[in-house]
Amino acid sequence: MKNLIIASTSTLHGSGYLEYLLDELSLFFEDVETIVFIPYARPSGISHEDYTAKVKDAFKKINKNVKGIHEFDNPAEAIENAEAIFTGGGNTFVLLYQLYKNQLIEPLKKAIRKGTPYLGTSAGSNICGLTINTTNDMPIVYPPSFKALGFVPFNINPHYLDPIKNNTHMGETRETRINEFHAFYSQPVIGLREGSWLRVKGKSIVLKGTLSARIFEYKKVAFEIEVNTELNHLK
Amino acid sequence: MKNLIIASTSTLHGSGYLEYLLDELSLFFEDVETIVFIPYARPSGISHEDYTAKVKDAFKKINKNVKGIHEFDNPAEAIENAEAIFTGGGNTFVLLYQLYKNQLIEPLKKAIRKGTPYLGTSAGSNICGLTINTTNDMPIVYPPSFKALGFVPFNINPHYLDPIKNNTHMGETRETRINEFHAFYSQPVIGLREGSWLRVKGKSIVLKGTLSARIFEYKKVAFEIEVNTELNHLK
Repeated sequence: MKNLIIASTSTLHGSGYLEYLLDELSLFFEDVETIVFIPYARPSGISHEDYTAKVKDAFKKINKNVKGIHEFDNPAEAIENAEAIFTGGGNTFVLLYQLYKNQLIEPLKKAIRKGTPYLGTSAGSNICGLTINTTNDMPIVYPPSFKALGFVPFNINPHYLDPIKNNTHMGETRETRINEFHAFYSQPVIGLREGSWLRVKGKSIVLKGTLSARIFEYKKVAFEIEVNTELNHLK
Repeated sequence: MKNLIIASTSTLHGSGYLEYLLDELSLFFEDVETIVFIPYARPSGISHEDYTAKVKDAFKKINKNVKGIHEFDNPAEAIENAEAIFTGGGNTFVLLYQLYKNQLIEPLKKAIRKGTPYLGTSAGSNICGLTINTTNDMPIVYPPSFKALGFVPFNINPHYLDPIKNNTHMGETRETRINEFHAFYSQPVIGLREGSWLRVKGKSIVLKGTLSARIFEYKKVAFEIEVNTELNHLK
């Protein structure tokens, strides 16, 4: 049975890394001793080692061990044997490029199918959608495909931002960008605001956190959904 | 001799389409009767026809005709025979995808080498850099490559945005994103603010408009350059 937390962000403004999620994660990883961490997204270009050290520190607070996937000789085997998996944020293109390069797409899909608990934040959540066509990230590397893991049957836009009132900058709003996506593809997109997450259990996909989320469906007007909304019909 | 205007944006807040540039364009296109317009970037997903109509309206004010490249049977031939070329903004991925699909990369390079005047705004400027790895756009389609036209020997970040003070949103600043790019590539990036453009004449590349621009060089601290700075050493 699928068992995932797909979070918009790792960090809320003014709070520590993963802090807002720690109570939830304590329950989520209740039976887990060691989490395999995927540091490939490299926020600010930091090394896999430095990123893993930061994640280790955060999980110490709930008494969990963390091992970076780069520490294993065989990353596919590491995923296969993992008690639990966490993919952190950073750059979605860099992350997906590295997953393809290390041939981890199929092992990850297999692990999630058999019920290995998976936590994603930001880029690590983006890749849980059908494709990364709705990431906010800069395309700093060219992955062999934009196809992602498809743990949920729609696309995800993490760090969703509402249009800023009286903004004088002429770059597109997030909503305009997602509408442009729908000029080419028909799958739904969920705009997850910082502080929101999706809780996936088997076929159930429920919005959690304190904020509403925004749903973009093909040829429909975007609309808000409230916390605890079941999204298993969205596809 | 290369002859280009590479502009950050088509439109300044509170002003009409291309309005801030019209005096400059009147001179730039002085000897030109008809401009071939490339509408492929499709801002907000609008059709090639609607986008071209909008551009025709703007150029009427300086007595120039505009013909959309989609109106020609042979787009490569249209580029080859063009008196002048304008590539408008929208989505950089959609634009580049369509340029590859219609096999226009080489014809465009050839036209620019022989001196056909070229105007780019936003996405139409992004593709003038070495690659589109530093676009701000959402990757709504997957182009066969991120390699762009290389009319200038560096990358461009149009609509450059300074970090917003006291911002509580946790998405990366533009500067962080460009620094992440430099974890993988070494070419310089110019952050062009809205209202700025690069004036390319042969080997000369000069910053124009009213604002400074921000230069990001590999392993250097980013710095500002003033209007009228010559950038032909930047590579």
